[in-house]
Amino acid sequence: MALAGVVAYMAPASGQADGEATPIFGIKIPPGYRDWKLISVAHEEGNLNDLRAILGNDAAITASREGTLPFPDGTIIARLAWSYAPLEESSKAFGRLQSFVAGPPRNGVQFMVKDSRKYASTGGWGFAQFDDGKPADEAVHNTCFPCHSAAKARDFVFNRYAP
Amino acid sequence: MALAGVVAYMAPASGQADGEATPIFGIKIPPGYRDWKLISVAHEEGNLNDLRAILGNDAAITASREGTLPFPDGTIIARLAWSYAPLEESSKAFGRLQSFVAGPPRNGVQFMVKDSRKYASTGGWGFAQFDDGKPADEAVHNTCFPCHSAAKARDFVFNRYAP
Repeated sequence: MALAGVVAYMAPASGQADGEATPIFGIKIPPGYRDWKLISVAHEEGNLNDLRAILGNDAAITASREGTLPFPDGTIIARLAWSYAPLEESSKAFGRLQSFVAGPPRNGVQFMVKDSRKYASTGGWGFAQFDDGKPADEAVHNTCFPCHSAAKARDFVFNRYAP
Repeated sequence: MALAGVVAYMAPASGQADGEATPIFGIKIPPGYRDWKLISVAHEEGNLNDLRAILGNDAAITASREGTLPFPDGTIIARLAWSYAPLEESSKAFGRLQSFVAGPPRNGVQFMVKDSRKYASTGGWGFAQFDDGKPADEAVHNTCFPCHSAAKARDFVFNRYAP
């Protein structure tokens, strides 16, 4: 059941997804997502302690740029994150440490996939997290929608397009 | 003289650059740069106080992914930056403020253009900064190369590809 319907959003040119699908939402890693365009960037303090980038497929980019809400079916938003790492060369350039850059990947890679019919019970969004390429467990996936409900007024999406 | 040779790196498909060229290096804003792929992300503390994204044209992305040094002629690296803004919805989701996102653009948009012959006296790189679409002044452009010399061992590029 977790494998059902996971290829609906894949463009043929992007190739086939392989690997395991996530629990609950049945999502595989979208091929080529690292080549998608940038929506925005963020820094999480606290335990997350990461630098992150939000990328989007073409549907996501168009909707983000135009401020379209709700996002159309077929939208996929990717959240990449890396450890918050000091940049050594910066100390030389500025005379003190003030620059922090993306270190090794951290906190997994996450996706939001819009399918208003399939994911009707979670605001039209399927949620996915992969750690080192493997789907996170069901308990993790149960936390996605409740947290994103804080952004219900923006179709459950925290990020905004950064021009 | 500031206008000489500024179109050498423009792919026909990307259209023509318009607007003013920068002092010293004679660089115009590369068309379509906001659609380029992501190299990495960063946060500058201190007076800069921004969140930033490093994007690259295809030559830059390929070289960054493969770790090619020096970067080949034709490489263009773009540095976008935005104010470091608290995300209100995050407080609701996490119970405290810990998420910072890209606010309005800040600290201009910068480019590094590789042309080992044309820019031989500055490590093969031309440097450009635009504030609200207008070239920064000559004094600003005189600071680029000395600062980037701190990264001389990496062909004067601070960023590293974030997988």
